Amino acid sequence: MGFLDELKFDGKGLIPAIIQDYRTGKVLMLGYMKREGVEETLRINRPVFWSRSRQTRWVKGETSGHTQEMKEFLYDCDGDALVIKVEQKGPACHTNYRSCFYRRVFPDGSEEIVEEKLED
Amino acid sequence: MGFLDELKFDGKGLIPAIIQDYRTGKVLMLGYMKREGVEETLRINRPVFWSRSRQTRWVKGETSGHTQEMKEFLYDCDGDALVIKVEQKGPACHTNYRSCFYRRVFPDGSEEIVEEKLED
Repeated sequence: MGFLDELKFDGKGLIPAIIQDYRTGKVLMLGYMKREGVEETLRINRPVFWSRSRQTRWVKGETSGHTQEMKEFLYDCDGDALVIKVEQKGPACHTNYRSCFYRRVFPDGSEEIVEEKLED
Repeated sequence: MGFLDELKFDGKGLIPAIIQDYRTGKVLMLGYMKREGVEETLRINRPVFWSRSRQTRWVKGETSGHTQEMKEFLYDCDGDALVIKVEQKGPACHTNYRSCFYRRVFPDGSEEIVEEKLED
């Protein structure tokens, strides 16, 4: 695949992947992928991440059942970031919030929870 | 601001900031911020980035006029990523596409331009 050679992976061999709900446009999470993960993502139609803390390949939902089915794969002008639109089953966040970005900060520093917490 | 102490900056002192159109939900670009940049972002109501290639602070539109006015600031469960919703004037991408994520890749490796190119 030609575009793979246009992607730039960082010093640790990773590229950030923004995961977005394909229906609502909500940003669900930010993950990281290795080159093999990008290839596998396009092959199996699910985002294949690299866990920086555990140093392992992971696919959302393999244990939780909260799977992501890929609907659209985009890459940016510099080839150093991805957007992957998915159909998300259940919450995207391990905290059970629909999105990992559930905390809003206002200019005065006050905060508000802006996401719904889903049942298990 | 309490939340600042919950943010995790990487080895280079940076945190990724996903910039999203507040009206359409379109992801426009991915930038990086230093801690000072995050503070300044909330103060001046525009995303304040750090250019990794030029090693300088930058604010979108300072030369191009394609400014970003902040509408919403969110941070994620792990405190290692931001979503900033903005009102984007003109194209977000230096290539004049509305979004930096203008190339779509299909599972067979073929590509398509999915964004509109705006006039200067």
